[in-house]
Amino acid sequence: MNDSQKPRNLTVDGWPANRPTSSVSESDRAAGIEVTGNFSRFSQRNDMFNRSRWDDVVDGSKAKSFFRSHTRPKPRRGDGFQQRDFALRNASWVVADTYANRGMKEGRREGFLDPLEPFFPVAEMRPEAVAPEVMSRQIKRIAKLFGADLVGICEYDERWSYADRFDFQNKGTRPNELPPGLVHCIVLGYQMDKTLVDAYPSALASTAAGKEYSHEAGSLMQISQYIRNLGFEALANMNDTALAIPYAVKAGLGEYGRNQMAITEEFGPRVRFSKIFTDLPLAHDAPKRFGVTEFCEICRRCAESCPPQAIPTGPPSEHGPNRSAISGVVKWTADCEKCFDYWVKLSSDCGICMRVCPYNKDFSRPIFRLYRRLMGTRLRGLMLRLDKALGFGARRKPKDWWDDAEAAGE
Amino acid sequence: MNDSQKPRNLTVDGWPANRPTSSVSESDRAAGIEVTGNFSRFSQRNDMFNRSRWDDVVDGSKAKSFFRSHTRPKPRRGDGFQQRDFALRNASWVVADTYANRGMKEGRREGFLDPLEPFFPVAEMRPEAVAPEVMSRQIKRIAKLFGADLVGICEYDERWSYADRFDFQNKGTRPNELPPGLVHCIVLGYQMDKTLVDAYPSALASTAAGKEYSHEAGSLMQISQYIRNLGFEALANMNDTALAIPYAVKAGLGEYGRNQMAITEEFGPRVRFSKIFTDLPLAHDAPKRFGVTEFCEICRRCAESCPPQAIPTGPPSEHGPNRSAISGVVKWTADCEKCFDYWVKLSSDCGICMRVCPYNKDFSRPIFRLYRRLMGTRLRGLMLRLDKALGFGARRKPKDWWDDAEAAGE
Repeated sequence: MNDSQKPRNLTVDGWPANRPTSSVSESDRAAGIEVTGNFSRFSQRNDMFNRSRWDDVVDGSKAKSFFRSHTRPKPRRGDGFQQRDFALRNASWVVADTYANRGMKEGRREGFLDPLEPFFPVAEMRPEAVAPEVMSRQIKRIAKLFGADLVGICEYDERWSYADRFDFQNKGTRPNELPPGLVHCIVLGYQMDKTLVDAYPSALASTAAGKEYSHEAGSLMQISQYIRNLGFEALANMNDTALAIPYAVKAGLGEYGRNQMAITEEFGPRVRFSKIFTDLPLAHDAPKRFGVTEFCEICRRCAESCPPQAIPTGPPSEHGPNRSAISGVVKWTADCEKCFDYWVKLSSDCGICMRVCPYNKDFSRPIFRLYRRLMGTRLRGLMLRLDKALGFGARRKPKDWWDDAEAAGE
Repeated sequence: MNDSQKPRNLTVDGWPANRPTSSVSESDRAAGIEVTGNFSRFSQRNDMFNRSRWDDVVDGSKAKSFFRSHTRPKPRRGDGFQQRDFALRNASWVVADTYANRGMKEGRREGFLDPLEPFFPVAEMRPEAVAPEVMSRQIKRIAKLFGADLVGICEYDERWSYADRFDFQNKGTRPNELPPGLVHCIVLGYQMDKTLVDAYPSALASTAAGKEYSHEAGSLMQISQYIRNLGFEALANMNDTALAIPYAVKAGLGEYGRNQMAITEEFGPRVRFSKIFTDLPLAHDAPKRFGVTEFCEICRRCAESCPPQAIPTGPPSEHGPNRSAISGVVKWTADCEKCFDYWVKLSSDCGICMRVCPYNKDFSRPIFRLYRRLMGTRLRGLMLRLDKALGFGARRKPKDWWDDAEAAGE
């Protein structure tokens, strides 16, 4: 008896009841997620951005100048940090900023500390019932229509919700309460521009991040509104509310890598993730493995290329280096204090670990799809040496990006 | 002496002074624009949407139900007008709605009656001067990075600015004042989804419009912010402030067609246009002709397919059928009263004239690029007969779109 033939419980309006979730341990195993008895949920107050506002361990005044560079940049002579670079980066953020700032007076910071506020409320009526498998396919198509590059669906998992939200007004915490019954998670992936990512570290390259934050904010507003217009609840969240990476892995969008990112088959590490929690009956995807774990075990390119040496060179561990790491999850965990300190020095985020990753390739080209396949075989050691020998992952000069941009605009 | 060798006047900070505009009559001729002595600027109060709020000629209560369908739709049984269709269409608008609604209390309606409000003010300093030709190429590349599908640049032209703005609070007019010195116009084109447009008329198809309104709003915020971050003024406008079509034609993005649209080489009529007025020194594009005028002269497909017969079958004329037409411009002019009345009946915009246009083809396919080329030759009569014989322009069933969407989501 295949899955679609199983009898379903139907709710009063004819929609199938949301099915009980599968065994967590089984689903964890398939995703390569290992949680120990030391597990506790992560408090958003311990996120580095938030710590810079209350924790004396972080140099608050320097952090302030990092944040200020996004509104009043101080360009310098170096290539990639001139006025045009900051001009482009700061422009890329403005849609995300629009949503982040609109509720500031009411104590909200949408997309960072709080979910995106719905535009219209949940419709009072629902259309005729649709099977979860069918609805999942429709939602994926519609998410792509509204700009998502990748879409996967898995079950909601309380473990990845923040233990509490950071309160930016009093520097303390607020409860992270979600409406009940949102048992599914739609995970959305947004590709970051390769031509920009290849110029990390620079204010120019950082445009790749800002552009997708803005892209996501608008796209999530639309996708979640579609669900609400069908008469179901949908909570659209970006960096707020819950961790994104475990969901991306569970929903089959990527495998966890040494650089702390979900490495996708389509775009490697060059993806930003968002989530929508919903009670719309949906079928789930399974985690997908294509050899990333095994490759990362032998590859230390990200760790070796990290100027502040924030990325571990050793095996996965359940112990993080400081309070900005979740505890009780066996994984590669970066030292976020060192990482953020470097961002502050640059007045820009740093994505060297994304740029140098051997999975940062243009997989629309058949040669790189073959390359990726070989990286997932026992030839991985050879592939790693080859990757270095061929000079992949080298920084592209920001000036070259501008010169190419001019040529492309002709 | 070519253009880039000409001596330039430089402003105090080293940036080239904005050059005097070329002869209007010469530039009009190249664009196929003919303005007569009866010309007067169009008052935004006479736009059909605005007339529905003050003019007794328009049935206000029916118009209200049209607007209300965008917030509280009343789905019906017909294919393309069910809950899922309205759900998708109304979701597609929410980013444009976010910007349109945020200043309502202060009497603004951004993107419709007022330009988009800047996020950050104009930077106090400017980077090193860049030649207008170089800057135009950079701006085009950056506009595309931020989502525009087409970009052209021409001079600002006061004739296309509304004589005044509609005041939605007192139903009267407000002055349409622009900051001085914004002598250039960057014209942005956003492709509408062909799979949706082909399902016009339907609430589903109307998603193609809402999606691009939302897309434009975010994209314009980013592009105009980039210019402000370089220390120049940039006024981003959508349907507000000025007519878009003459700018699209002047900037070389398309040719004017019988269906009142700028027909582009890349996407035919399936494009929405926005503009950014700026004092950033820029080089201009020239209008481009590829045979549209001559084709539209013999083709009446849009006029014949229009249920309320709102599109003229005769030659261009300087006289419009009612106050919703600009006066003193020799062109094909639709009867907007009949057109809007039909929209109201549908509870949805209608794009039949876009769907049936023989230029509504997928020009990414070489066969259709050849087809388009032949449409621009003396074989146009034959091509028109061929187009009908092959059944192009037929309405795609909304149900088929949904079925395909499911298949695509697999």
